[in-house]
Amino acid sequence: MTSLDDLPIRDDLRGMSPYGAPQKHVRVELNVNENTHPIPEPVAQDIIESLARAILTINRYPDREFSQLRDSLAGYLGHGLTRDNIWAANGSNEILQQIMQAFGGPGRSILGFPPTYSMHSIIASGTGTRWVAAERDAEFEISPRTAVAAIREHQPDIVIFCSPNNPTGTPLSLETIEAAYDATDKIVIVDEAYAEFAPAGSPSALTLLPGRPRLIVSRTMSKAFAFAGARLGYLAADPSVTDALRLVRLPYHLSSLTQAAAVAALDHSAEMLAMVDDIAKQRDRIVERLTELGYHPWPTWSNFVLFGGVENPSEVFETLLEKGIIIRDLGIPGHLRVSAGTRAETTAFLDAMAALA
Amino acid sequence: MTSLDDLPIRDDLRGMSPYGAPQKHVRVELNVNENTHPIPEPVAQDIIESLARAILTINRYPDREFSQLRDSLAGYLGHGLTRDNIWAANGSNEILQQIMQAFGGPGRSILGFPPTYSMHSIIASGTGTRWVAAERDAEFEISPRTAVAAIREHQPDIVIFCSPNNPTGTPLSLETIEAAYDATDKIVIVDEAYAEFAPAGSPSALTLLPGRPRLIVSRTMSKAFAFAGARLGYLAADPSVTDALRLVRLPYHLSSLTQAAAVAALDHSAEMLAMVDDIAKQRDRIVERLTELGYHPWPTWSNFVLFGGVENPSEVFETLLEKGIIIRDLGIPGHLRVSAGTRAETTAFLDAMAALA
Repeated sequence: MTSLDDLPIRDDLRGMSPYGAPQKHVRVELNVNENTHPIPEPVAQDIIESLARAILTINRYPDREFSQLRDSLAGYLGHGLTRDNIWAANGSNEILQQIMQAFGGPGRSILGFPPTYSMHSIIASGTGTRWVAAERDAEFEISPRTAVAAIREHQPDIVIFCSPNNPTGTPLSLETIEAAYDATDKIVIVDEAYAEFAPAGSPSALTLLPGRPRLIVSRTMSKAFAFAGARLGYLAADPSVTDALRLVRLPYHLSSLTQAAAVAALDHSAEMLAMVDDIAKQRDRIVERLTELGYHPWPTWSNFVLFGGVENPSEVFETLLEKGIIIRDLGIPGHLRVSAGTRAETTAFLDAMAALA
Repeated sequence: MTSLDDLPIRDDLRGMSPYGAPQKHVRVELNVNENTHPIPEPVAQDIIESLARAILTINRYPDREFSQLRDSLAGYLGHGLTRDNIWAANGSNEILQQIMQAFGGPGRSILGFPPTYSMHSIIASGTGTRWVAAERDAEFEISPRTAVAAIREHQPDIVIFCSPNNPTGTPLSLETIEAAYDATDKIVIVDEAYAEFAPAGSPSALTLLPGRPRLIVSRTMSKAFAFAGARLGYLAADPSVTDALRLVRLPYHLSSLTQAAAVAALDHSAEMLAMVDDIAKQRDRIVERLTELGYHPWPTWSNFVLFGGVENPSEVFETLLEKGIIIRDLGIPGHLRVSAGTRAETTAFLDAMAALA
């Protein structure tokens, strides 16, 4: 039998393992920061009707410019954005890959601040972009001074922030983003995958876009929109950025089905986002209860909680799994991460944690 | 206003234009080798039901291994293939991109035989793989001797054939593929996007897979399956090849909707492929009639015809367009390409060509 090592794969891939959380199916799945609420029935009905219309012309290539979808995304984001500011792809992973293909790649570098979303460095590697890791301040924060110092030291071609940060949940101030932008003449990305879970009224990096053509804010419909299965990531930026991405995107990268489903879901953004408040409540409940139980949950503006003070993370992980509850062990010493689920799922998790105490 | 040139894009992208045929919508669209037949109504109904089921759990990430879809694709291809031999992605463009990420990339090269599918060299460029163009024999053919000589001369890391070739329609002999495989210890790709339109009984490169772990046969559902809008490309190869692609694929790259739609369509492959015979008939009719009209159509095993003897290709293109018929001007001197449509569309094209004479 031929093994991977017998094939002429790239040397930098030898010995690597594929990325991905274990795909276990149990009663309570709180491991990959999904929105555990199925989408509301009337919205599902509209999406299905939209898909049914798309099937009628599925023999034809999709709209390569996904114009209607870009209109819908611009309308959802607001902030005076229009179709020309928007780009979309199969998940924000593909968005980030296209950005690195256009602005990074061989001979170029991207600066990030671990612990952060692990796909950032993996996509860097997949596009031949050198990953440079900078230190965070205490409590996973990044001050303007820290960001600027890292940029001055490493002179990266791209700077990437995750706001709020995954897997820590830490919010990021607009001052840090502004200072970073001013400290470089290269690209600055703010990955706002979890932005909708931030406290009401907290400003998004979208507010910084005017006058900053090198700033890119990426988003996803996977989390707040409960649309992880549909794979729709997107970004807002200066129109020239979308022109750059047209040079590296594969033509027709977004299927007619993806476009139809996303447009229909965005027509119902109010109903889709109604779940967000409930999820934020469950998240706050996790923070409160874990604190009572003697753990150290970190401040979080997203739909998950990273908590420290776990003596033996892999043992806790396994004990929960035996009870049909899966959370995430990211290999951060003394820490585990849990996604906020429905009230019932969250209760199941918290009861299991209490039983451990 | 910021322009693309003001942004810090990669130097090798400066001055480039995005790939893509004009997206014009006219009465008769025979420009991008689509299957112009909508899918049959009962099949559409099943696909919609399958999508409706997928929407129920669209809040969850898709099956990262798309196991059911790989089973369906293996069953469709036959030749003793199983799930472990199959990989899929958003169009065969993404399949080729993943292959080049795993086996090509910076410092490596891919050898192709233009004129051929223009995305091959574009994807090479997008992945930093050096594109090496070799000469074909007369009449766009590639003999075993020619293939071996090119491989010996250029020592590429990947060899890519297109069989039948786009845009010429030229078939490729299995002898050439075997000889090329034996002349290298690197990867050999056979892009069989149009394989289903070949004469009944002509063997696919799939028959060569046993004992050849470095051979990859790529396919698509866009053409024969009338599924261009759904974006489903796939490949068959040794299981170790799929292990290599797991190292470079973005996790969850295939949405739940894509998986559901493709599985349902494959359940109806007989009905989906019923259109293929009719399309082949229209293709043969185009060859016959254009010959009568004094043009030189090249022998073709696909759903399109490249024809020479056109004095002024851009003028013919524009004249047809004025009549609501779009075909393709690929910049090959004296040539145009037309896709075989329905009987009525094909008649409209041939009548317009006759009127030019």
